[in-house]
Amino acid sequence: MRPKIYVFGDSITEESFSDGGWGAALANHFSRTADVILRGFSGYNTRWAMKVVEKVFPAEMNVGGGRAPLAVTVFFGANDACLPDRDSAFQHVPIDEYRQNLHAIVSYLKKRWPSTHVILITPPPIDEAARLLHPYGENPSKLPERTNEAAGNYAKACVTVAGECGVPVVDLWTRMQHFPAWDKAYLRDGLHLTLGGNKLVFEEVIGKLKEVGLSLETHPADLPFIDAMDPSDPLKVFEE
Amino acid sequence: MRPKIYVFGDSITEESFSDGGWGAALANHFSRTADVILRGFSGYNTRWAMKVVEKVFPAEMNVGGGRAPLAVTVFFGANDACLPDRDSAFQHVPIDEYRQNLHAIVSYLKKRWPSTHVILITPPPIDEAARLLHPYGENPSKLPERTNEAAGNYAKACVTVAGECGVPVVDLWTRMQHFPAWDKAYLRDGLHLTLGGNKLVFEEVIGKLKEVGLSLETHPADLPFIDAMDPSDPLKVFEE
Repeated sequence: MRPKIYVFGDSITEESFSDGGWGAALANHFSRTADVILRGFSGYNTRWAMKVVEKVFPAEMNVGGGRAPLAVTVFFGANDACLPDRDSAFQHVPIDEYRQNLHAIVSYLKKRWPSTHVILITPPPIDEAARLLHPYGENPSKLPERTNEAAGNYAKACVTVAGECGVPVVDLWTRMQHFPAWDKAYLRDGLHLTLGGNKLVFEEVIGKLKEVGLSLETHPADLPFIDAMDPSDPLKVFEE
Repeated sequence: MRPKIYVFGDSITEESFSDGGWGAALANHFSRTADVILRGFSGYNTRWAMKVVEKVFPAEMNVGGGRAPLAVTVFFGANDACLPDRDSAFQHVPIDEYRQNLHAIVSYLKKRWPSTHVILITPPPIDEAARLLHPYGENPSKLPERTNEAAGNYAKACVTVAGECGVPVVDLWTRMQHFPAWDKAYLRDGLHLTLGGNKLVFEEVIGKLKEVGLSLETHPADLPFIDAMDPSDPLKVFEE
C-alpha cells in the first residue's frame, strides 16, 4: 500500500485542494509515490484541534495494513491569534495554551508514529487593511479581528515549539515578509492564500520534506513509468 | 476512519491533481467527508492496468481498519484506442480485449467490494489536428496516432460494458461533443483536458456519484463545522 502524507490544519489547509492549492500540488508532486490526505478544519484553533486529534488520527490506523504516515504537516495558529477583544474572539487561544497544544499534538503524533516526520507551519502574516475589507460578520468595532503583530507572536511560539520538539518548521510569517509586496502577492483577503501564496507553501513544504529525506528520489514510483517500457515488449517491465 | 473514493486511470487521471484538475476538485468537494485517492498511470492501457490492478487495490486493504471504498472511477481507453499502425502503436489494445479487460477490472472491484460504486468513464473525443501539433515523438508518418472515430468506438465499447455490468458510466466522448467548440474548450492538446474539460469531468462524476446516493447530503462532515459552534461555548459541540 502506498504511504501517506497528512495535511492537518485550519481553513488554509482545508481549502488547499481548491484550484492551485498547495495540498493538491503536493498530491500532484507525489502522484505516483504517496497519498496526500486532507485533514483541514476551517476556523479551528489548537484547542479544538486537541478535541479532534484522536478522531483525525484514530488508533485503528495502527492495525491491519496501516503504516505510519511518511509525514504530517501541522498548520494552526491563524485562529488562535484572533484578538481576544475583537470580532472573532471566540476563536482566540492564549499564546501559552497555543504553545502547550502544539506540543501536545506533536507529542501525540510522534508517540504513535516515531518514524513519521511532523512538520510545523506557522500562521501567515496578516494584512490588516485587507481583513477590514473581508470581515466575517458586521464587525461593529471596525477594527481587524487579527493583527500582523499578534500573528507574528504565535509564529514565534510555533518556531519555539518546533525547536523544543526537534521537528522542522516552515516559518511562513517570516518567509512571506521577505518579499516586499507580500500582502497582495501571497494573501487574497489578508489571511488566506493567493495562487502565489499556495505556491510558496508548496515549495516550502517540499523543501522541508526533502531536508528530512522525503523526495521523489528517495521514494520512487511504486509501479512502472511508461518511459521504462520497451515498446517492442511493454509487458516485460511488469515481470521485474 | 474517513471513507475513500479512488480515481483509477491513465494520464488524464494521473494529472487530475494539477492546477484546476478534476481529481483535486473532487477532493476539495469532499474535503470534510471522504478522501480522494489518486491512482493514475500515464500512458497505461487496460492491458497494463490488468497487470497492476491487484497491486493498486491490494488484499491488505480488506483487513484491519480497511473499509470498502465508497467509489472507484475507472477511466481507461484513450491509450487502448491508439491506432495499431501509427506512432503510438505499442499502446494499442484491440477493442475486444479492451472490452474484456474493462469487464475484468469492474468484476475484480465488485467482487472484492460489492458495496463500492464503480463508475466507468469513456475516453474523451480526439482533436486530430491538435494531436499533430503535440506529437510524442518525431512521428515521421505525419498522421495522428489517435483518431476521434477510433476513440468513439472505444467509448461505445465502454458504455456497453457499463450496461452489461450494471454500473454507471460517464460517456465523455459523447458529452463533450454536445458543445460545438469542444475541441478547444475541453482539450489542450487534442487529448488531455483544459480547465474547462476538467470542470466538465468533475461535474459529470459528481452527478453520477449523486445518482448512486453519494453526496454531501448523504455523507455529512465527520467533525463539527465552525458554523455549528456556539460562540459563547464552542467546546460544547465536541461533546455531542
